Amino acid sequence: MGKGKKILIVGGVAGGASCAARARRMDEQAEIIVFERGPHVSFANCGLPYYVGDVIRREQSLLVATPGLFRTRFNIQVRLRSEVTAINRSRRTITVRDHENGKEYEESYDALVLSPGAAAVRPPVEGLDLPGVYSVRTIPDSQEIRQRIEDARAGRVVIIGGGYIGLEMAENLIRRNLRVTIVELQCQLMPLADPEMVVPIHQALTKRGADIRLGQEVTRVTRGAQGLLTVHLQSGETVDADAVILAVGVRPETRLAAEAGLELGPIGGIRVDERMQTSDPHIWAVGDAVEVYHVVTGTWAPMPLAGPANCQGRIAADVICGREARFRGVQGTAVVGVLDQVLAATGPSERVLKRLGLWESPLQCEKIYLHPGHHANYYPGAEVITIKLIFSRKDGRIISAQAVGKEGVEKRIDVISMAMQMGGTVFDLEEAEVCYAPQFGSAKDPVNLAGMIAANVLRGDVEVVHAPDLTAPPADVFILDVREPFEFKRGHVEGAVHIPLGDLRRRMHELPRDREIWVYCFVGQRSYVAARALRQHGFRAKNLSGGHRSLLMWQKAAALS
Amino acid sequence: MGKGKKILIVGGVAGGASCAARARRMDEQAEIIVFERGPHVSFANCGLPYYVGDVIRREQSLLVATPGLFRTRFNIQVRLRSEVTAINRSRRTITVRDHENGKEYEESYDALVLSPGAAAVRPPVEGLDLPGVYSVRTIPDSQEIRQRIEDARAGRVVIIGGGYIGLEMAENLIRRNLRVTIVELQCQLMPLADPEMVVPIHQALTKRGADIRLGQEVTRVTRGAQGLLTVHLQSGETVDADAVILAVGVRPETRLAAEAGLELGPIGGIRVDERMQTSDPHIWAVGDAVEVYHVVTGTWAPMPLAGPANCQGRIAADVICGREARFRGVQGTAVVGVLDQVLAATGPSERVLKRLGLWESPLQCEKIYLHPGHHANYYPGAEVITIKLIFSRKDGRIISAQAVGKEGVEKRIDVISMAMQMGGTVFDLEEAEVCYAPQFGSAKDPVNLAGMIAANVLRGDVEVVHAPDLTAPPADVFILDVREPFEFKRGHVEGAVHIPLGDLRRRMHELPRDREIWVYCFVGQRSYVAARALRQHGFRAKNLSGGHRSLLMWQKAAALS
Repeated sequence: MGKGKKILIVGGVAGGASCAARARRMDEQAEIIVFERGPHVSFANCGLPYYVGDVIRREQSLLVATPGLFRTRFNIQVRLRSEVTAINRSRRTITVRDHENGKEYEESYDALVLSPGAAAVRPPVEGLDLPGVYSVRTIPDSQEIRQRIEDARAGRVVIIGGGYIGLEMAENLIRRNLRVTIVELQCQLMPLADPEMVVPIHQALTKRGADIRLGQEVTRVTRGAQGLLTVHLQSGETVDADAVILAVGVRPETRLAAEAGLELGPIGGIRVDERMQTSDPHIWAVGDAVEVYHVVTGTWAPMPLAGPANCQGRIAADVICGREARFRGVQGTAVVGVLDQVLAATGPSERVLKRLGLWESPLQCEKIYLHPGHHANYYPGAEVITIKLIFSRKDGRIISAQAVGKEGVEKRIDVISMAMQMGGTVFDLEEAEVCYAPQFGSAKDPVNLAGMIAANVLRGDVEVVHAPDLTAPPADVFILDVREPFEFKRGHVEGAVHIPLGDLRRRMHELPRDREIWVYCFVGQRSYVAARALRQHGFRAKNLSGGHRSLLMWQKAAALS
Repeated sequence: MGKGKKILIVGGVAGGASCAARARRMDEQAEIIVFERGPHVSFANCGLPYYVGDVIRREQSLLVATPGLFRTRFNIQVRLRSEVTAINRSRRTITVRDHENGKEYEESYDALVLSPGAAAVRPPVEGLDLPGVYSVRTIPDSQEIRQRIEDARAGRVVIIGGGYIGLEMAENLIRRNLRVTIVELQCQLMPLADPEMVVPIHQALTKRGADIRLGQEVTRVTRGAQGLLTVHLQSGETVDADAVILAVGVRPETRLAAEAGLELGPIGGIRVDERMQTSDPHIWAVGDAVEVYHVVTGTWAPMPLAGPANCQGRIAADVICGREARFRGVQGTAVVGVLDQVLAATGPSERVLKRLGLWESPLQCEKIYLHPGHHANYYPGAEVITIKLIFSRKDGRIISAQAVGKEGVEKRIDVISMAMQMGGTVFDLEEAEVCYAPQFGSAKDPVNLAGMIAANVLRGDVEVVHAPDLTAPPADVFILDVREPFEFKRGHVEGAVHIPLGDLRRRMHELPRDREIWVYCFVGQRSYVAARALRQHGFRAKNLSGGHRSLLMWQKAAALS
């Protein structure tokens, strides 16, 4: 049997490893070599925070595959500690530095796949190179952090960055009884989500003693006696720490691609087409290093997620092996667990949509909130899920969803994500047929309820207002609270008139016919019933979406920022 | 304001209650009256087994809404203990018997909605009317059972029927330390699922001491001293019991509709169109009493599920109130939890598809099995989910899916159900973008893997054989086990030749080129890699879908039946 094509893969984690294995399954004759700069191939980088937290106890568990397994199972060569330093496109070779012996050599390719991943962003802040400052990208990084916190002196840790990695690290360090301070430049944790949706995460962390500093920039880190670090904030405050975790995000590793003259995208990732091909027809790129097409926003940007990376690796392999395959792009479906809270999302947040100038036009976004139980409320243990659904007023197309709660959160986002992928509308959610038994869901599942509430808006059955509207309502607006007396007493909107829903029909004469009436209850359901009744009786009623509960979340978010 | 139309609703649970509330929201002027034969309106019938099991402790919890709430919140009259005995279509009235005072009266309607539900099937077996024999349809039923089992004498219960209700009752009675015998006429539990998929449920029950008698008919029940019941089986065996639970299914309550001359469907439920309208344009019907269109099989049949019932109630209300609304039909998405196992499905089983004559043509079904972890295997606590995906060879359209396991089971079925609803294919599952963090899923989620495995079959990359094929393989088939030696030693297919995957490439000369080679491993992944390599080297290799694990499930199912 003749010698097949030679496929070189730079980077053996996630996309690279998937690409290599898929290429072998597609082409038994190909020569496939994976070059990995680090000491491990195909390790579970999403598990690193949990390895630090000792949830994953053995480093071994993080090794999804070893070079030996690649060799025996797939006939794939893996070269560890082998750094690819240059691509010589005219000769179709790469230059490799073998860190075992310091030697450099060239290796030729028919197809080259770049899967170099992303590196931790290191802002130009003095002291981030000090011992005791770590990022969390590799197994050695995590081992060093473990070592440091198992060292008796380490009791306080400052985490710079309140995104996915920062919060997963916070959970794991709290689990190990360390005192955690999180410093976040933005005025909220999880800047990819909307501020009100992050409130339960913020509260869970502070309840467990985390010290969260929002809207704060780190100006420098200094080192004092016994290696104690001090983190200096722009406000002038300082926080002492035994260790500092740098988790302000990642940037695509594009040096190799850029030096080889491959086209980069507008945000600075490697530019690829939907076949994962770069501007050089012999070179493909996958994973955290590339810019991908966002199917909702229509923009190109890096999306450092493991699922799409694996998918891209398979697609690159298919294309190299002569098949038709196309990557559909991403919609940004992700989840983070922080202590007892789970936050999941698919599609862009309101904040991102507004920043990109897409909210009003062309997408014509509307949003609704709801707070259903994760399963039937009559079955013990129902936990509230807060869902925010964003959809288009034009056609009901689902644009995005965010959910936060303790249980069943990512399930609902997964279902909505699937609907979005298929071009689904809120009407499709309304009639979604999902599993129901009282311990798993409700006869009207949260997914159905989200669809129903949105569909009610689209059909013009109800108009909604949102919590921020209450901060500066039109002068003559009449605010109506239809909750029970005990709820009203516990706290209500200033100036709200209180008529419980059960009394509403016989007390309608108390309401003004010449003013807009904004109705609210605890979660927006009773007030929806009230608003429907009022509208049919000739009143101009609008419903506060998500009710008092959404208002409290929004107020808390505003207070924190 | 003028008097609106008069809407009468027969039956105030699920579909009826949803219809009433929706009708009010749509039409503030309508007069809406709900007639409920029993003492409760809108109670949680899906919760009854858990009320018996004392998971739900208070009867009060089962009451989703009360007549008072309907009155004050929705201005809806609820008449309890009011049995509708006749529909007088020409006069557009119903005859109602008030069981409080024994009087009968007529009530006129503009629109009538029938939501009478379904009744427990009572086979013509002697003794099913004895004290101590119960069905589980109402709160009073459940109270009686609770009473009986809280009575010190009740230690043994026979459950007749191994479907949803039977198994939920089994779990709850085991939870209360009763000895449970399940008698099922079919040769498997959960006859709506495929036999191999039910094995983990069967094993979980027997592990907890349940005595399961499959393929057994109850011929009579007799009553002895101190009220002890004896259940007589066709085999001649008898089982003594302090109580007997009858759970052999439900049949639509169609007496009222039939007596009024409304059209019934072929299976005997009330026939409705997609607007939930019966053959009388002034009468609608919803819920367990109607036959619904099954979107996959194209057949009409009852589908007693709470989700669709609620959806139908809303649609009937919308149509009555002058709106366009259509019920899309059902695909049969359901879940049952039994002890530590969860079984969920969407779409018809292989058994049902074959019984309906749809398997080969027109649907051209193929199936695959997989056994992924419910989350990343490197994160502690991953539990296996066994998934069976049925799809069309024609176009990859998803036809159905079943899944069983301990965790994350119904989540995957919900996602697949959503994809099916949108007309999705296995290729859509392959590229589904779902939430991933190691405690929630995998970078290649079980949903993705199911899609990938099915897509590999459709693209012709691999041919699959199934466990039953191994019972009578073609004479010259060569069976190859590519697992590790320790796995092979633990048990293997008789006559299988053992070459671990890692040795396969250098030992290919040992394999026959003139015979079909059936390759297997533990779950079908390594054997897929082997089959791909073998095919490219000119061998005629096929993969055992789901591997040895699927084989064991199938063998166990065959042994039980």
